[in-house]
Amino acid sequence: MRLIGPFKQVVTLANLPLRGKLSDEQLEIIEDGGILVDQHKIRKVGNYETLRLENPDVETEEIVGEQVALPAFVDSHTHICFGGNRSNDFAMRNAGKTYLEIAESGGGIWSSVQHTRKAAEDELLKTLLERIDFLLALGITTIEVKSGYGLDVENELKMLRIIKKAQELTKAMLVPTCLSAHLKPRDFDGSNEEYLQYILNEILPKVKEENLARRVDIFIEKSAFQPEESKVFLLKAKEMGFEITVHADQFTPGSSKIAVEVGATSADHLEATVDEGIELLATSETVATALPGASLGLGEKFTPARKLLDAGAIVAIASDWNPGSAPMGNLIAQASILATFEKLTTAEVLAGITFRSAFALRLEDRGRLEEGMKADFVTFKTGNFQNILYNQGSLKSEGVFVDGMRI
Amino acid sequence: MRLIGPFKQVVTLANLPLRGKLSDEQLEIIEDGGILVDQHKIRKVGNYETLRLENPDVETEEIVGEQVALPAFVDSHTHICFGGNRSNDFAMRNAGKTYLEIAESGGGIWSSVQHTRKAAEDELLKTLLERIDFLLALGITTIEVKSGYGLDVENELKMLRIIKKAQELTKAMLVPTCLSAHLKPRDFDGSNEEYLQYILNEILPKVKEENLARRVDIFIEKSAFQPEESKVFLLKAKEMGFEITVHADQFTPGSSKIAVEVGATSADHLEATVDEGIELLATSETVATALPGASLGLGEKFTPARKLLDAGAIVAIASDWNPGSAPMGNLIAQASILATFEKLTTAEVLAGITFRSAFALRLEDRGRLEEGMKADFVTFKTGNFQNILYNQGSLKSEGVFVDGMRI
Ligand SMILES: [Zn+2]
Ligand SMILES: [Zn+2]
Repeated sequence: MRLIGPFKQVVTLANLPLRGKLSDEQLEIIEDGGILVDQHKIRKVGNYETLRLENPDVETEEIVGEQVALPAFVDSHTHICFGGNRSNDFAMRNAGKTYLEIAESGGGIWSSVQHTRKAAEDELLKTLLERIDFLLALGITTIEVKSGYGLDVENELKMLRIIKKAQELTKAMLVPTCLSAHLKPRDFDGSNEEYLQYILNEILPKVKEENLARRVDIFIEKSAFQPEESKVFLLKAKEMGFEITVHADQFTPGSSKIAVEVGATSADHLEATVDEGIELLATSETVATALPGASLGLGEKFTPARKLLDAGAIVAIASDWNPGSAPMGNLIAQASILATFEKLTTAEVLAGITFRSAFALRLEDRGRLEEGMKADFVTFKTGNFQNILYNQGSLKSEGVFVDGMRI
Repeated sequence: MRLIGPFKQVVTLANLPLRGKLSDEQLEIIEDGGILVDQHKIRKVGNYETLRLENPDVETEEIVGEQVALPAFVDSHTHICFGGNRSNDFAMRNAGKTYLEIAESGGGIWSSVQHTRKAAEDELLKTLLERIDFLLALGITTIEVKSGYGLDVENELKMLRIIKKAQELTKAMLVPTCLSAHLKPRDFDGSNEEYLQYILNEILPKVKEENLARRVDIFIEKSAFQPEESKVFLLKAKEMGFEITVHADQFTPGSSKIAVEVGATSADHLEATVDEGIELLATSETVATALPGASLGLGEKFTPARKLLDAGAIVAIASDWNPGSAPMGNLIAQASILATFEKLTTAEVLAGITFRSAFALRLEDRGRLEEGMKADFVTFKTGNFQNILYNQGSLKSEGVFVDGMRI
């Protein structure tokens, strides 16, 4: 066993409900706290001196100076495996160019597909690991990573195999998701329905066979896949044993309904969600995931997180880090900015990037510092946990612990 | 003389107009560029190899790997000299508490005044220097710093003397501004007009005598000083020889008109500016300064930078870093986010944080890399300058040069 501390404050997030609004008074803050770890898991969180007296023989890791500890963060939605770069899309969009003009000058998702297909595997792996390290430094130890820039059997499997390879090389836990239904690729000869059938027939069986992902995602939007064809696809993927997640209601409302109907683990984006979607999400186990990085990258409205929480939904916050619409990657800055625009409490934001986003990935073993949970936590050099969100991404983490060990 | 390079790109910002909109095609990008420095100033910017052949005997600083160089940034509006911390205000505001509730629980500007008055001088100096170092690391080498948390003779002078002391200890150039007219302090026994008269009679003469600031600022807003009393005050301060800058139109429109009428060097905030203000600013030398950090800190609308540029105004972008409404401090992230919401070109953003913000401080010797200008520049490890804004604050600077020397 190992005892880490003392911390000026340990914010445990214990005993908070999975869904709905939270007040900061509900937060459990242990002053002068310690974290006792046993075999990768938390044995006990409590007063450091008491824990030390109770466990005189354990190895201790002493924390010097005023620090706070929180559960490590969980980023439940990223696209960080990609080739190329779309800074020119970003500049053109800000210069007022249309989607079409950007696509015509070689931008858009299709550009990322071409670069990812062309990229050498070791280059893709290297840049993926660099982005994982960037997220780890923020205190994020569980990271979902989507495919979706391959868009054919060969290249979707290439992406998912690279993500699997990255898992062997990082302390972070990666959760791969098959997003072959990101967009029908330009070189696919057939309809949307035929492309979705191709995914079901040619890609998903291999994903299963090689155990490359347990989740399937789709982008339901006017410019991508339509509601009805998507629903048929998702139900079949579910029959194959995959968990479902959906890019829903980003620009057009309606697809969050489908996410709930098919029993998706999460519906992500929701910037355009209207009351019907909010009501459905409020009573389902489908996590409503806000992606403020996309709002900040595009300069568009935020997910109505306040309304969703008030209605009783399970609200997670994720980075959506991708080369097109969300190139920042700093989930802490994004979550803090979402809080100012949507008026979210500190507790709601912290829950959204810990146990609620873990639940979006159906990982119920992390995101709270309490007995039996995975001993992943992050520390900051401050005496007051409020400073983390207050500094809007400018306060760097001091230490990141995975399975109780500093990485 | 010293020659620094080769850079994959040098973005000079030469030849861009001081006012109005800019397209990215107007940017001068020197590929494989070098910067020749003579006595703190730029002698020439051009092709590195050509400069080396023309100047065979100069000392060279070789740049390894692909990097870009830009003029160092200028932050023309900050409040980074302060005691205490207002993370609890931030959390309460996001939790939906009112201004009054926050003030009653010990928050608001008055809290910063109390902490700043109480703070030991060496503590204030130390935290000021830490914030200056944070800005320097972003590539900001010219930093305006306001007083305004002292609000009586003793404490306003204390703040300005600390800023002067900091100047001796940093490579950054600090531009102090007297903001005694931030708010009438609770312990002042008299009206707003009497407090402004007190500043004119008791504070400003001493500021002049000790040469502590050449600029005077005021917060014109319903909750602070009213338009007419402010105008009388500013005209008198101007008569005393001070340059004028104004916190204008943050929540209520109208005070930008006064800024223009008194010939202020800049009118800052402008989130609430309406057409009349835009038209006045468009034809004046009063720089319109957007402060996206306040929008992101409060979750409120952005300064209408697009409209101001289209109308022909001189638009700068500054951080407004302060403990209350703008605690982030990362001007690059803020400027990039402003660009996505307001649809600003890369050229407009870069101009806004270099020569245009320098002009807000009436410093015309910096902010462009061209002959005769101060040799302050910043480098990034990338082959494409577009990546700096694209990464929305996540791409760290590689090197910061002041007077041609790496700091
Ligand atoms: Zn996404
Ligand atoms: Zn200000």
